[in-house]
Amino acid sequence: MKIAQFRTKTTDGNRLGMLKGDVIVDITELASDAVTFINGGSANIAAASSATTRTAYALDAVEYLPAINPSKIIAIGRNYYEHAIEGGSEPPKSPLLFTKLLNALNAHNAPVILHSISEQIDFEAELAVIIGKRASKVGESEALDYVFGYSCINDVSARDLQFGDGQWVRGKGLDGFAPIGPFITTKDEIPDPQNLDIEGRLNGEVMQTSNTKMMIFNVAYLVHYISQAITLEPGDVIASGTPEGVGVFRKPPRLLQDGDVFEVVIQNVGTLRNTFKKA
Amino acid sequence: MKIAQFRTKTTDGNRLGMLKGDVIVDITELASDAVTFINGGSANIAAASSATTRTAYALDAVEYLPAINPSKIIAIGRNYYEHAIEGGSEPPKSPLLFTKLLNALNAHNAPVILHSISEQIDFEAELAVIIGKRASKVGESEALDYVFGYSCINDVSARDLQFGDGQWVRGKGLDGFAPIGPFITTKDEIPDPQNLDIEGRLNGEVMQTSNTKMMIFNVAYLVHYISQAITLEPGDVIASGTPEGVGVFRKPPRLLQDGDVFEVVIQNVGTLRNTFKKA
Repeated sequence: MKIAQFRTKTTDGNRLGMLKGDVIVDITELASDAVTFINGGSANIAAASSATTRTAYALDAVEYLPAINPSKIIAIGRNYYEHAIEGGSEPPKSPLLFTKLLNALNAHNAPVILHSISEQIDFEAELAVIIGKRASKVGESEALDYVFGYSCINDVSARDLQFGDGQWVRGKGLDGFAPIGPFITTKDEIPDPQNLDIEGRLNGEVMQTSNTKMMIFNVAYLVHYISQAITLEPGDVIASGTPEGVGVFRKPPRLLQDGDVFEVVIQNVGTLRNTFKKA
Repeated sequence: MKIAQFRTKTTDGNRLGMLKGDVIVDITELASDAVTFINGGSANIAAASSATTRTAYALDAVEYLPAINPSKIIAIGRNYYEHAIEGGSEPPKSPLLFTKLLNALNAHNAPVILHSISEQIDFEAELAVIIGKRASKVGESEALDYVFGYSCINDVSARDLQFGDGQWVRGKGLDGFAPIGPFITTKDEIPDPQNLDIEGRLNGEVMQTSNTKMMIFNVAYLVHYISQAITLEPGDVIASGTPEGVGVFRKPPRLLQDGDVFEVVIQNVGTLRNTFKKA
């Protein structure tokens, strides 16, 4: 199943919904938000699946919210070989962890502001892994048991701040720089997270195209590795790295401009679309 | 006033308290936690100050919790000249932002685990700034209006992971690596945050001694700088940097060992004490 956090013009407050055909069925009565739904475990999934007569909304009638409100977003640098190479780096020997601050959370269809403190704002299409239960010192062979599902994330990056600071926290963490969604797809619909086509499209043109089989460190290994001394909580996000083709390393570079539309398209997971707007 | 989050053996759940002489007065009825108290603004401070007949606990009868549960901890690298120099770095020309993950939050008196994935765990005594209201694009001259108060934080750092990764997120973000507390001191008791003696003491021996006047970028500038494109929320923490004398750069190095006790001592703010324990 696919779940989404959203608002509508006719309902109060934030809602939780489930995609069913071409409508979103309101399941807020089961759980008020995605983290609460995840904490409810398989009972919630069963209850949502057996929904019969609930309110439904057309897809274009909802305002999407970030697909999840995690306690942290752990991101992985240079996790596709060709992306490490295009940036002039050696492929890493172990996962390179960084983070996106939570003020960066943003939604499908929402504008992303091109903050004026940067002149080099770039896109990165990535598979987002959503943690399903608290994970501490998890073995690689059991790691996928700790995953709830998957989503699309754009690891928007201010390259001048990222490279100028050396530390990536600011360049990756500006307000709105982590659009995630529109849905979380539960893992039962993704039998192999390492065989998903992934694309990044700028104004409809394919800029990034790869498959998650090209990850240097796969999802199971990432959960295992991170959890050795960083406890992952239900709803936490792992942004699993971007394939080659990002704007700053293109010849000539192609950085984001006012009005640009970027889409993260992942097989069986969905399409995350955002328009970039001048501050 | 000084507020603390704590538990006791005789009460249910987490409590909020106010230091009064040598007891902690329970003010949970005003606000269930420090962020809620901050969001209540000056009305809460007035109500707490006029408390008359509330339950009180001896200081040694409470189990401290992290002084705050922020949405993020923004930390500042190399913000004391002599610390930048001891690490072989140029003093930065603008604040160097990094972050401590929230799984790192820890309390006064609580043990800090020497995770076995590191062999070089170090201390950093720092003044923690606690944000009082949402701050976005704040001018330097008004920046202190956005501060609620101050606390002590130990920016515990796994040096081998920090320097090995290059990115500092993992080395600074392991479980328990951000002890903060025991109290938040409201800013009315700290007329000048840039004139506070600060010390780091290892097993009673002074390892770090300085004054916050030695910061390269002062608190007002940090709030201004960060808030240009990273919105600070009430309760958010700025770890404002550590003075010289950290363990890894000493000759010979003095890294933390099983049983070590480290104290962060800041004038008018308090003493944060933690024991380090083998995993």
